[in-house]
Amino acid sequence: MNRYGAEFFGTFWLVLGGCGSAVLAAAFPNVGIGLLGVSLAFGLTVVTMAYAIGHISGCHLNPAVSIGLWAGGRFPASQVIPYIVAQVLGAVAAGAVLFFIASGKTGFDVTAGFATNGYGEHSPGGYSMMAALVTEVVMTMMFLIIILGATDKRAPQGFAPLAIGLALTLIHLISIPVTNTSVNPARSTGVAVFQGGWAISELWLFWAAPIAGAILGAIVYRMISQENS
Amino acid sequence: MNRYGAEFFGTFWLVLGGCGSAVLAAAFPNVGIGLLGVSLAFGLTVVTMAYAIGHISGCHLNPAVSIGLWAGGRFPASQVIPYIVAQVLGAVAAGAVLFFIASGKTGFDVTAGFATNGYGEHSPGGYSMMAALVTEVVMTMMFLIIILGATDKRAPQGFAPLAIGLALTLIHLISIPVTNTSVNPARSTGVAVFQGGWAISELWLFWAAPIAGAILGAIVYRMISQENS
Amino acid sequence: MNRYGAEFFGTFWLVLGGCGSAVLAAAFPNVGIGLLGVSLAFGLTVVTMAYAIGHISGCHLNPAVSIGLWAGGRFPASQVIPYIVAQVLGAVAAGAVLFFIASGKTGFDVTAGFATNGYGEHSPGGYSMMAALVTEVVMTMMFLIIILGATDKRAPQGFAPLAIGLALTLIHLISIPVTNTSVNPARSTGVAVFQGGWAISELWLFWAAPIAGAILGAIVYRMISQENS
Amino acid sequence: MNRYGAEFFGTFWLVLGGCGSAVLAAAFPNVGIGLLGVSLAFGLTVVTMAYAIGHISGCHLNPAVSIGLWAGGRFPASQVIPYIVAQVLGAVAAGAVLFFIASGKTGFDVTAGFATNGYGEHSPGGYSMMAALVTEVVMTMMFLIIILGATDKRAPQGFAPLAIGLALTLIHLISIPVTNTSVNPARSTGVAVFQGGWAISELWLFWAAPIAGAILGAIVYRMISQENS
Repeated sequence: MNRYGAEFFGTFWLVLGGCGSAVLAAAFPNVGIGLLGVSLAFGLTVVTMAYAIGHISGCHLNPAVSIGLWAGGRFPASQVIPYIVAQVLGAVAAGAVLFFIASGKTGFDVTAGFATNGYGEHSPGGYSMMAALVTEVVMTMMFLIIILGATDKRAPQGFAPLAIGLALTLIHLISIPVTNTSVNPARSTGVAVFQGGWAISELWLFWAAPIAGAILGAIVYRMISQENS
Repeated sequence: MNRYGAEFFGTFWLVLGGCGSAVLAAAFPNVGIGLLGVSLAFGLTVVTMAYAIGHISGCHLNPAVSIGLWAGGRFPASQVIPYIVAQVLGAVAAGAVLFFIASGKTGFDVTAGFATNGYGEHSPGGYSMMAALVTEVVMTMMFLIIILGATDKRAPQGFAPLAIGLALTLIHLISIPVTNTSVNPARSTGVAVFQGGWAISELWLFWAAPIAGAILGAIVYRMISQENS
Repeated sequence: MNRYGAEFFGTFWLVLGGCGSAVLAAAFPNVGIGLLGVSLAFGLTVVTMAYAIGHISGCHLNPAVSIGLWAGGRFPASQVIPYIVAQVLGAVAAGAVLFFIASGKTGFDVTAGFATNGYGEHSPGGYSMMAALVTEVVMTMMFLIIILGATDKRAPQGFAPLAIGLALTLIHLISIPVTNTSVNPARSTGVAVFQGGWAISELWLFWAAPIAGAILGAIVYRMISQENS
Repeated sequence: MNRYGAEFFGTFWLVLGGCGSAVLAAAFPNVGIGLLGVSLAFGLTVVTMAYAIGHISGCHLNPAVSIGLWAGGRFPASQVIPYIVAQVLGAVAAGAVLFFIASGKTGFDVTAGFATNGYGEHSPGGYSMMAALVTEVVMTMMFLIIILGATDKRAPQGFAPLAIGLALTLIHLISIPVTNTSVNPARSTGVAVFQGGWAISELWLFWAAPIAGAILGAIVYRMISQENS
């Protein structure tokens, strides 16, 4: 049970920290943290939690990561579903806490966005569905290559949390304008259920594309890593 | 006595660096560091001091952290009060030095803010007292989970200062708009005594909420960590 | 073959991450990541990949680095050409994916820039060809000194990816206004072929200067390092 | 001789990177890196060089650091003067290269600033000479405490370059508005000689205050560290 608790609180932190910084601080007048600050926040949720709970659950915090690690031969199939359940519950709990805090300011309107992911009309920069799909697949593919590589036995020990967390920062630096950046179905779900409208109807892409990308990443890493040769 | 000296200078640095960057540099015309720079500054005070004095005092720099470490079974009860005294004295000394430097510019008005924490009318973004309370409790709870986890014997050795300092950066990226971010009663006190007005009357929340959150964090980490099983 | 695959995907990530953040997110209205975000993105591509594939290929991702490492006595001459081929192919593949994503937004015009490098009229800040030449030579020289130093057997183990990646961030913080920063012929080529006009005719400088600088850096490091004494 | 070469190139990089980012990129229209980017650049010159040449010369790059390390019992008196000579020569060489690059843009005026340090009328934010003096003394004092602490045998091994470099970033985040931040007499000198006017007549403060602060920092660290007990 302890590892599921760790995944719950870890994903809670990823969504509260990443989406929270976006909702509360990104566009604060004059001194707002902008997309750079939000990118840093998402990455630091993973850096901090990977050092804090890596030794308990491995710190996936992301259904696509759990599936990608399974595809990469690093995670047992029997654990995939329970991990995903814990992650989604943690993400929704974070969405609830963020909703409560954000509602403490007059004029808050959850339907205006709430850091949800979207494409086409709901892409922050107006990017098409195909651009969104390719972005999410490629970003998650590269994310899994980095995760599998940085946790490889031949990589320097102890640095994987930094490499993986900073990879998430980098992914956000590139792709927030396209999809608001998901690469994580739990993160997308945790805020979409509160937005309640278009964010839910576009949620399919933010489950399908990250999972496809993660499996692709596992295949690429197996190819280039000589792990099985 | 040496460990109290270390806590004094460490908390001095946390307040001078964090609140100093906010007062002096956050809103500098055109090239100001903004909330992102202030968030980074707060975190780096902990990163730098944890490497510099971690081997002397453990580098708490924060009454809520000392209490949370006690609740987590990592710190003796007999040391809690002397640590808190050293921390508050260091914070007030930093407030004094910052007051002297800031006064070196014509037009400085300490009552206008001085990086103090507040809620409702004095929340930077106008968030309610309840939103402020929940924010400070949850942020400090997560802070303690990260501190206890990153210093766990099973976590990678040597990285805890990075994880803990960057956690403080992350907490600021999320919550400056709500309360100006405390999670540290000494930091709040060190500048409130110079502001002198509403900052003192609202100080109770920035003692109560971080301490409650820290104890909660210790309980959660004990639950998920299997340390006692 | 595996090491060439690693260089291909690594350079793909460097160009997609660095140039991608520049094209998609740098000038996003109000909350854009700016040159600071782009600098961070370029550096993080190297930090993340060096931890992920350093144990496979050494993670050069840059023809000038491969040549500089050869000049520094750390890389066999026979591998230089195949590494450069893999790097350029990865860079062009990234240019293609970025072109597809960027085209998903109405009004995208690849000839307007596409994160290409240039001098004189095409320098972001209008710097002369001589200033551009000196900048690229000196920046790559210092980059190689850092690479050779941080991977020296006497340097702390495991930190080289951080030092080298953050060096690339630093180089961009200084020199984007001058040349849009190359220090990497593959990165320049990967986007120039899509811009198609002046970026190709100015490409010679972004092969010649980084390679000259890299060789110079190798000579300096040999002089100051006592490695051969 | 090798260690003096390392100090020369290291200080060259500190001034070219820190002052270069300030002169070339800080106020670039719309996407400039601002004081946050400059702060990061100064810190990263030290992070990168400390990993690259730490094993050659110890990577001081700063007369105040060399003197503070001597005061802290970590550096022989006989080496202080030669180190300072190498540092100042490297800083002036960087000033020359930066002057050449910056002159490659029409309208460059070195007398307008050139990233020099100043107080009163020449303080970026208009701070008085006394505020400047206190700021430089306190910042350098804390810098030396961090340097001596992070390189203490009891501190985690390998992380000192990160802690020390990020301390320099933090110091800039706080104090650029007051003095444009020196804490390093070589850095101040390297650009003042090109500005040629008021920057030279105010240079005394940026030798006196950092050196006084460094000695103070060494005294404080000896007091709190129990090294000699």
